[in-house]
Amino acid sequence: MHQFVSILLILHTKRNLYDMNATQLFEEIKKKRSFLCIGLDTDIQKIPRHLLDTTDPIFTFNKEIIDYTHDLAVAYKPNLAFYESLGAEGWVSLDKTVKYIREKYPELFIIADAKRGDIGNTSSLYARAFFDHFDFDAVTVAPYMGEDSVKPFMTYLDKWVIILALTSNKGAFDFQFLKDEKSGDLLFESVLKTSQKWGTTDNIMYVVGATKAEKLEEIRQIVPDHFLLVPGVGAQGGSLQEVAKYGMTDQCGLLVNSSRAIIYASDDEDFAEKARLEAENVQVEMEELLLEAELL
Amino acid sequence: MHQFVSILLILHTKRNLYDMNATQLFEEIKKKRSFLCIGLDTDIQKIPRHLLDTTDPIFTFNKEIIDYTHDLAVAYKPNLAFYESLGAEGWVSLDKTVKYIREKYPELFIIADAKRGDIGNTSSLYARAFFDHFDFDAVTVAPYMGEDSVKPFMTYLDKWVIILALTSNKGAFDFQFLKDEKSGDLLFESVLKTSQKWGTTDNIMYVVGATKAEKLEEIRQIVPDHFLLVPGVGAQGGSLQEVAKYGMTDQCGLLVNSSRAIIYASDDEDFAEKARLEAENVQVEMEELLLEAELL
Repeated sequence: MHQFVSILLILHTKRNLYDMNATQLFEEIKKKRSFLCIGLDTDIQKIPRHLLDTTDPIFTFNKEIIDYTHDLAVAYKPNLAFYESLGAEGWVSLDKTVKYIREKYPELFIIADAKRGDIGNTSSLYARAFFDHFDFDAVTVAPYMGEDSVKPFMTYLDKWVIILALTSNKGAFDFQFLKDEKSGDLLFESVLKTSQKWGTTDNIMYVVGATKAEKLEEIRQIVPDHFLLVPGVGAQGGSLQEVAKYGMTDQCGLLVNSSRAIIYASDDEDFAEKARLEAENVQVEMEELLLEAELL
Repeated sequence: MHQFVSILLILHTKRNLYDMNATQLFEEIKKKRSFLCIGLDTDIQKIPRHLLDTTDPIFTFNKEIIDYTHDLAVAYKPNLAFYESLGAEGWVSLDKTVKYIREKYPELFIIADAKRGDIGNTSSLYARAFFDHFDFDAVTVAPYMGEDSVKPFMTYLDKWVIILALTSNKGAFDFQFLKDEKSGDLLFESVLKTSQKWGTTDNIMYVVGATKAEKLEEIRQIVPDHFLLVPGVGAQGGSLQEVAKYGMTDQCGLLVNSSRAIIYASDDEDFAEKARLEAENVQVEMEELLLEAELL
């Protein structure tokens, strides 16, 4: 067994210069005065029409958005569905996007919003896909299949899993609030309590939707220090103030995602400038919140 | 609203000649005297070495396996992780595999084992990926995010979602058996009860692991008629006899999957013949079970 563990560690300690633990991520947040994550939900049907004449419209769009916003955000989060819907071609655009960020802005944290999760040997392959083939820093995973569906992602040094806990959509109420008879915990609370034992605050984050910001206070009782990835601010109606009020830790502990409100701020030739303006508004608000919390 | 629904229907009624409802799937089962699904968990590190000299080893392997087993199985199930781990190249191999089946053996049912599930607008894109870009018949989905994460897959006529209910892995015990205080239902039972309202027996199946065959009797109380996709027979230790005893309906209602035990029966040049022998053993046993149940 010991030998087996050593082999695993040898395989996965290929560390990149900019792989980050929680402290390093907080350093970036302080440098940028921002905890913004920009969601690259890049839809061929929504990007400005003039880009369709370029060889790779999806990559061209991403590149422009990144060039205009990289100093305002600490993380980017391509949503895999948008790339998969284009087949092999979409994967090429995604590959180019990740490589572009790695080469030009190596300080950025890159999240594969993939919501994967399967039996152990299959999850190992998803981990291989996102951490070896691509060089993502983190991948979102669904907890339904339990420990062996999540653990394979954790054998990579300085890579992260981001586990769905409480999501921002309407369907969150179907199962995530079911109350366990024995412990009295809601399902999302059980997920937080059980799964935090599988790793550390340096390799697990949780998805907690901003549309349920009032729950953050309770969630911070269970996971006081873990980073939370918070979608649903902006287009989905969540409030950044509320999220910071209930969710911020002494190392910030938050990555707040905005996708559509930033990347589709304009559908004209000025889309990247307009995206920057939107991102700037969010960054300014984040800077104030960080100052209020005396983290800057 | 009415107008909106009509538009959706118009968009998604592009029906292929061989798209199947439950009755048609049962017809195929009777013709083949088999309810076998072969899992195409095709791993570049496990396929016979001599295939590595071909232009597309993954596709060549799949093609051989399919040619040698197509008359013994009703369904094939590529596991997406295996293709994704190779990046864009893997998606090309997958695309060729699906097209090959469609053209040469159009009666086969093709399942994307993808275990997706995201907020509504993202799930719509996954549906576009699997049903429009690829021409899969069904896709496996995780239920954690609830109704709006599953529904978008159901706007396609004669396409299916296969919802994870009770999985075959060890981690299934982490959350799927939590007991809801109010209803007294275990989580997987809540998933079955709630989600069956989202569609019909012609567009929803459930994943129920063969390693928990004793639970099938209870599950059949909740979903007496839905098709179940049953992994875990063979390599994972489940018994086909038990699965049929507790899970079979008067329209069979079962697709039993075997992956590794069939496709990796040999790692030599005779791999396809050996895969056929393994598949034949399973088909013969299935034929007996169908005869015992008086379905043939």
